[in-house]
Amino acid sequence: MNEILEQTLLYDFYGELLTAHQKEIYEQFVLDDLSLSEIAETAGISRQGVHDLVKRCQKTLEGYESKLHLVEKFLSIRDKANRIEQILGECEREKRDPGEIVARIREITDAIIEEL
Amino acid sequence: MNEILEQTLLYDFYGELLTAHQKEIYEQFVLDDLSLSEIAETAGISRQGVHDLVKRCQKTLEGYESKLHLVEKFLSIRDKANRIEQILGECEREKRDPGEIVARIREITDAIIEEL
Repeated sequence: MNEILEQTLLYDFYGELLTAHQKEIYEQFVLDDLSLSEIAETAGISRQGVHDLVKRCQKTLEGYESKLHLVEKFLSIRDKANRIEQILGECEREKRDPGEIVARIREITDAIIEEL
Repeated sequence: MNEILEQTLLYDFYGELLTAHQKEIYEQFVLDDLSLSEIAETAGISRQGVHDLVKRCQKTLEGYESKLHLVEKFLSIRDKANRIEQILGECEREKRDPGEIVARIREITDAIIEEL
């Protein structure tokens, strides 16, 4: 996964655990893609200050994921949902045996339920 | 949802954010179903101390859920996965039109993917 996507996902999941100030600065960096200097100017703090704050946020968010693994869990579920969609596509295109389709989809949904 | 199930779910999701000491006591209360007095005796702290610690843990875990809503999200996904299983059951029992089955399952998996 690329770094920006990973940071965005971590922020989606755990961002609410940051302070309002951290969120404001971090969003400008990760979501709005502003440079450290641009953020520093608007926020009235030094470029180094923004840099440190962003790094600290990343470390905090990664810390939550290393303990809770909820992004990992969600990506695994999304992957399974995508596999179901793929099977449905095959089912439409290839007129497969419905019994086989049911068995394959059931196996994946069982795995989704297990994951919880 | 009953209270014990809710507390167990919250602990499953966010328990790793408690301290080792909190986890030890809280697990005895919620997972092992020991009484405050029993826990107090083993841990060598007062019954009131155990009571306060358990309440504080509950508040902490509920605080995470009120910010992140990840238990809610997961329950919603599990519900959808159960609905897919139900449709698969109908499909087996009633020899439904496969096109209709595909459409219904796709709608649900789309919703799962959307949720992420």
